Amino acid sequence: MIDESKKFEKTMKAVVFENRKISIVDVPIPVLSKNEALVKIDLAGICATDFALLNGYHNFAGIPGHEFTGVVFSAPGRADLEGQRVVADINSGCGQCDICRTGDQRHCGNRSVIGIRDRNGVFADFCAIPLANLHVVPDSIGDEEAVFAEPLAAALEITRQMEVSEQSRVVVLGDGKMGLLCALVLRQKTSNTVLVGRHPDKLEIAGQQGVHTICSQGKSTGETSNVEKGKFDLVVEATGSPDGINEAIALVRPEGTVVIKTTSFEKSVIDLANVVVNELHLIGSRCGDIQLALDFMKKKVIDLHPLIEAVYPLEKFEKAFAHALKKGSRKILIRNNNEIKGQA
Amino acid sequence: MIDESKKFEKTMKAVVFENRKISIVDVPIPVLSKNEALVKIDLAGICATDFALLNGYHNFAGIPGHEFTGVVFSAPGRADLEGQRVVADINSGCGQCDICRTGDQRHCGNRSVIGIRDRNGVFADFCAIPLANLHVVPDSIGDEEAVFAEPLAAALEITRQMEVSEQSRVVVLGDGKMGLLCALVLRQKTSNTVLVGRHPDKLEIAGQQGVHTICSQGKSTGETSNVEKGKFDLVVEATGSPDGINEAIALVRPEGTVVIKTTSFEKSVIDLANVVVNELHLIGSRCGDIQLALDFMKKKVIDLHPLIEAVYPLEKFEKAFAHALKKGSRKILIRNNNEIKGQA
Repeated sequence: MIDESKKFEKTMKAVVFENRKISIVDVPIPVLSKNEALVKIDLAGICATDFALLNGYHNFAGIPGHEFTGVVFSAPGRADLEGQRVVADINSGCGQCDICRTGDQRHCGNRSVIGIRDRNGVFADFCAIPLANLHVVPDSIGDEEAVFAEPLAAALEITRQMEVSEQSRVVVLGDGKMGLLCALVLRQKTSNTVLVGRHPDKLEIAGQQGVHTICSQGKSTGETSNVEKGKFDLVVEATGSPDGINEAIALVRPEGTVVIKTTSFEKSVIDLANVVVNELHLIGSRCGDIQLALDFMKKKVIDLHPLIEAVYPLEKFEKAFAHALKKGSRKILIRNNNEIKGQA
Repeated sequence: MIDESKKFEKTMKAVVFENRKISIVDVPIPVLSKNEALVKIDLAGICATDFALLNGYHNFAGIPGHEFTGVVFSAPGRADLEGQRVVADINSGCGQCDICRTGDQRHCGNRSVIGIRDRNGVFADFCAIPLANLHVVPDSIGDEEAVFAEPLAAALEITRQMEVSEQSRVVVLGDGKMGLLCALVLRQKTSNTVLVGRHPDKLEIAGQQGVHTICSQGKSTGETSNVEKGKFDLVVEATGSPDGINEAIALVRPEGTVVIKTTSFEKSVIDLANVVVNELHLIGSRCGDIQLALDFMKKKVIDLHPLIEAVYPLEKFEKAFAHALKKGSRKILIRNNNEIKGQA
């Protein structure tokens, strides 16, 4: 809820990425463009894409951050939204091209992406977000769940892209944040879900929620040497490594599917003859449908809380970021105090 | 029809690949195993896979050849088949494993493959072929069409793997024998079918049957530089080059499909981040359903005759093979005289 008594001033605190450097600065509160809302950010999550942005991905310069929950502070023409707790789709299409006209702005060639491409993000007190992208968070979903809406939607995207049934044999490679979410989501489709990773504590999170787990810790090569080859209907590649695809190809059955979640700067070297002879399906998978994620969270079938490792205030973003960069860390969140710095 | 008056003797002429050498020798006529028929080969086709076999693919040693039409000479327990003109599925599964039990022996891990893996092929007077693999050729289909059953089935496999509609925008990369067949088949699904190749004469074959063609002759890099990027619903990669996949990825629209037909010894270097961000589907595609190919040929909607470059007798196999190896050559066929060499 908006505290109407609080005087709204002109600057806010924000994290800025520029020239591979992080700074925390006072910047003007965003001026809204047409059909945008000003959202007060409450809680935000650090994602591997943020690491890539700092390293030059998309030549990004500005305020990063795309996983969040917040409250609509002002929404010109949409008073009904003001004061509502929201999350958001991160892609904003041009609205004019063939792709946008089919209704899927996620793939518009001229899209902006919150905190990733041509649009400032949520590691700040406020963020301007297109009205069309907002989704109201039901009361039954807490902030520490809602903040997972974006990565959870990405995990659920797999189930939009293909049929997964109770009979499906599924393996997820990589126990990073995305791998964990994929395993937890797919476990709801089939009890034959296996997660292969290197971190016993993270595997344990999935294990406690019914996922079979295999630890490959200490193996420098052949991560999946103790997993049956050529037998899985679906392999989700979420290792974060450009070579993970080859482990995935080795595990999937003929005519089975590999869903690729890893986005790496490095190219992958692949023996495509295997893909042809075994008629494999390799499917790239990225952002999903935020509403689908909210509907899923409402069912309370998976527990997201164990995925959180630590919560830092925005002022300690650099420390939070260093923590998030540590191998094997779970989700690091940023909680805003939403202090508005104004003129005296 | 079998000439019953012809005395059936013990040896036959056959092409043998061994230690990267071709020889034409007299060998014993095959002794049938259980549930096999002896087929007198009339016409056979040389395929790129045969080049690979000579170069060591599958460590093949024996009689190659898997594209053919012939007549059943003897079929113990299946007298109805004797004298019938036939073609055949090339994969023969173990019949015992999970995959065979689903009815798709094409992907059985223990399968033999006619003229490719653990089973002699059709560049010979006779070949032993599992009864279950035989398909009778309707009278309306000539030998010079029927001999294309196997590669045509492989082209039709694409239409089994995915929906292609009149609205689909399709491009086939590569005007080799497989590329041509794919373009001709897909043209029956949509008039928006484009074939990109380097050989004006081969493009002309497709062009005369309603396929749009683009010649990239003389371009050493960026074959598809004059083809619109990111717009095609389906790109068929049949270039034969390990780098063709990257051209294909550049042409397909977000969430579109690349069907991979190239089987190369060399690995491909791929930027999978593009595949993930654009949620592309990469589908390996290989052998198809021979019956589907016969049904398709019966409709007489495509003319296969222009795909034939030359027909050689079996005795001149080496000359035929050298001709087939020439860049840009169309299909080279081998016609058997089925002379049976016997003891005096």
